[in-house]
Amino acid sequence: MALFGRRKKQQEDVVEVAETPTLPPPPPTDAGGLRSMEDHRAYLLEQIEQLPAFGQQILDAIDLSICEDIESDIDLPGFDNSAMDGYAVHAADTVGAEEGQPVVLAVVGEVAAGGWSEEPLPPGTAIKIMTGAPIPEGADSVVPYEVTDRGSDDVAIRVPARTGQHIRRRGEDVTEGDLMMRTGERLGARTIGLLAAIGVDKVMVRPRPRVVVLATGSELVEPGRPLENPAQLYDSNSYLLAGAARADGAQVFRVGLVGDDAEAIKQSISDQLVRADLIITTGGVSQGDYDLVKAVMPELGMTDFCQVAMQPGKPQGFGLIGEDRVPMIMLPGNPVSAYVSYEAFVRPVIRKLMGIEPLFRPQVRAIATHLIRSAPGRKQFARGVVTTDPGGRRRVTAVGGHGSHLVSNLAKANALIVMDPDVDQVAAGSPVTVWLLDENG
Amino acid sequence: MALFGRRKKQQEDVVEVAETPTLPPPPPTDAGGLRSMEDHRAYLLEQIEQLPAFGQQILDAIDLSICEDIESDIDLPGFDNSAMDGYAVHAADTVGAEEGQPVVLAVVGEVAAGGWSEEPLPPGTAIKIMTGAPIPEGADSVVPYEVTDRGSDDVAIRVPARTGQHIRRRGEDVTEGDLMMRTGERLGARTIGLLAAIGVDKVMVRPRPRVVVLATGSELVEPGRPLENPAQLYDSNSYLLAGAARADGAQVFRVGLVGDDAEAIKQSISDQLVRADLIITTGGVSQGDYDLVKAVMPELGMTDFCQVAMQPGKPQGFGLIGEDRVPMIMLPGNPVSAYVSYEAFVRPVIRKLMGIEPLFRPQVRAIATHLIRSAPGRKQFARGVVTTDPGGRRRVTAVGGHGSHLVSNLAKANALIVMDPDVDQVAAGSPVTVWLLDENG
Repeated sequence: MALFGRRKKQQEDVVEVAETPTLPPPPPTDAGGLRSMEDHRAYLLEQIEQLPAFGQQILDAIDLSICEDIESDIDLPGFDNSAMDGYAVHAADTVGAEEGQPVVLAVVGEVAAGGWSEEPLPPGTAIKIMTGAPIPEGADSVVPYEVTDRGSDDVAIRVPARTGQHIRRRGEDVTEGDLMMRTGERLGARTIGLLAAIGVDKVMVRPRPRVVVLATGSELVEPGRPLENPAQLYDSNSYLLAGAARADGAQVFRVGLVGDDAEAIKQSISDQLVRADLIITTGGVSQGDYDLVKAVMPELGMTDFCQVAMQPGKPQGFGLIGEDRVPMIMLPGNPVSAYVSYEAFVRPVIRKLMGIEPLFRPQVRAIATHLIRSAPGRKQFARGVVTTDPGGRRRVTAVGGHGSHLVSNLAKANALIVMDPDVDQVAAGSPVTVWLLDENG
Repeated sequence: MALFGRRKKQQEDVVEVAETPTLPPPPPTDAGGLRSMEDHRAYLLEQIEQLPAFGQQILDAIDLSICEDIESDIDLPGFDNSAMDGYAVHAADTVGAEEGQPVVLAVVGEVAAGGWSEEPLPPGTAIKIMTGAPIPEGADSVVPYEVTDRGSDDVAIRVPARTGQHIRRRGEDVTEGDLMMRTGERLGARTIGLLAAIGVDKVMVRPRPRVVVLATGSELVEPGRPLENPAQLYDSNSYLLAGAARADGAQVFRVGLVGDDAEAIKQSISDQLVRADLIITTGGVSQGDYDLVKAVMPELGMTDFCQVAMQPGKPQGFGLIGEDRVPMIMLPGNPVSAYVSYEAFVRPVIRKLMGIEPLFRPQVRAIATHLIRSAPGRKQFARGVVTTDPGGRRRVTAVGGHGSHLVSNLAKANALIVMDPDVDQVAAGSPVTVWLLDENG
């Protein structure tokens, strides 16, 4: 300190102090030192950049977000073509045709789908034509098989043709220059079909983020192995979160468990940085003496540990780790806390990485089927089952207690019931906000 | 032939004539020779067997249908444990504690999550305990850090403890023998978490069917390549259907295009039989002279070509092909016909192979925003956009014309408007049935 003080004094106007990179200033807290859920979510999101776009084969780009506006280079159909199997004719040649007194025309050839001829159809003749085949120059209507004798050399036509009948016009579906997809839209089967139809085989999309999931805790055991003492329990968090991230479109690497050992935690995280666009951990971020994630991660990058005004999910950690500043979200270790935190923070981050809007779950109102109590002061997330009646009205029933260790009811839920910090109860029959967990916006 | 005839004669009463296998008798047709959409769908489905179940790692089984009832072998929690960081005590020892006059207990040790001791907690003492750590025998409540001085040798407790406070009881979430999942349920992130929590790492599921998609037609060109003459067009069907099958959970192999050549079609199908649980083709099933799929497939297996009372999608083909009787669905070649046929027939077949219920798209009613005309006599499928207002009321607007070649409007649609054969129009403001294309039941 003394030395530093001297040097600083001597070189005051020439030295540039190397700035240690730091996270942006965190959001404000309430009187109790808690950050709001919305503030924390916004704080994380502002530090996440969309992944760079790359070219992908259209079929492999399904569900991904497109990073370019796509205009059609061609007309669809590309040429006037037949909507029926039949005969292309000059409509004028069929005037007066009727049952018992058909018009007979010479059949001068046949045009299949994909066939093409520069030669115009002479007046007074017909040419056999298949569905999708180009209308020869001069012909102005198609007479379907059904009203002919299906002749080969000559054809007898029993009904006069209307000009233009059964012809699909060039460009009636898509015109060259039409905008087919906009930046930010996601590819689905039907848009992939449309892109193929205009001849596009590759598109620029944001890739699936590589998400590493890691659970910490010496008490955890891999499912499928025996519990060695009665105080051990199976790791469910890393499976729960890996499954959720996969359902949200990520490419997930579930890493084995790490015990409560500072060096092992640091090593495991360091090993994963090279392949991660996002790291998610659970456990070790609370106030306990064994909450080592919180203790060691500041050595590996810029971190932010805080308490969020939500229940469950109060202790939260975030960091930009290593040289590449890989985003890392450190969630609490109780399964329900971890899952609610995933929904509140991780899913929006994954969607931002992928360039998918909206970032958040569909948030709707449902009628509470019974009294739902809430603990005021923190935003409450309760597990719920939403049903929709045939008229489209949604009702919600809370399932399970408030314990953040209760996984069986989490599996039954299809929604989170969300109650603001100033709410202490929702009466039966009153509307309450829910996040729909099985609907992807 | 002569030899065979002789032998047959000699052994007339012992020979068993080998029965040529045939498909079951097809459903009846209407006066116009058309089969109803529902009858044809049922006819296909009765000939499809679910794929055999196999053991899969739980995380890789996401979205798949489970083929066993799963009961828990353990209690959850597996032991009484602490819901807080604090001290495990005998509640009786804290009677009378208050601010300014705390009860002081000797701290006899510390128990971390995963820690375990057979030794009971002596009366008059406390033991430091972390969230999730087992409650020592004898202790009956947990005093959180917040109401103590966080002492190490002795702890001063300022509030009396209630018996049982902050203890999560063994089995309060799941009891050994509880049914966790039933046959037929699908795995999602939250159920995967639950299975992991009870120690299950593998489950029996029906696999993703291997679906081969192949488009026929000499006029077709691969997207990304130049059109060589003005009558060619890009193959969009195989991309559309491959994308749809992938979205529906299949493992899709999109095979290159096959021209209108009988031998090439037979060869391509034969080559795919070995890796296919289902083959889908488009094109070549109508009445045209180049509809070769219909012409050649009876040589490779048992087939059924028919006309269905629906529009689009009238010509349909089905077969059980090769020695293994691989199901094959032969769809018409117009993109919209192919897609509507996929929704009506292929998707339910894929879901039956996977053991997923319900087989059909969610079918709901929506209010038509305008007059929608229908051609009576066949079930009509129109492309529609369904919107849901905040109150949950659905409205539907038809997009695009009736032409089955119009792919741009298909990409905009999120629903099929379904009108029965006896309907000729739906008035603005009236309800109409829709299939929701972006919701997976």
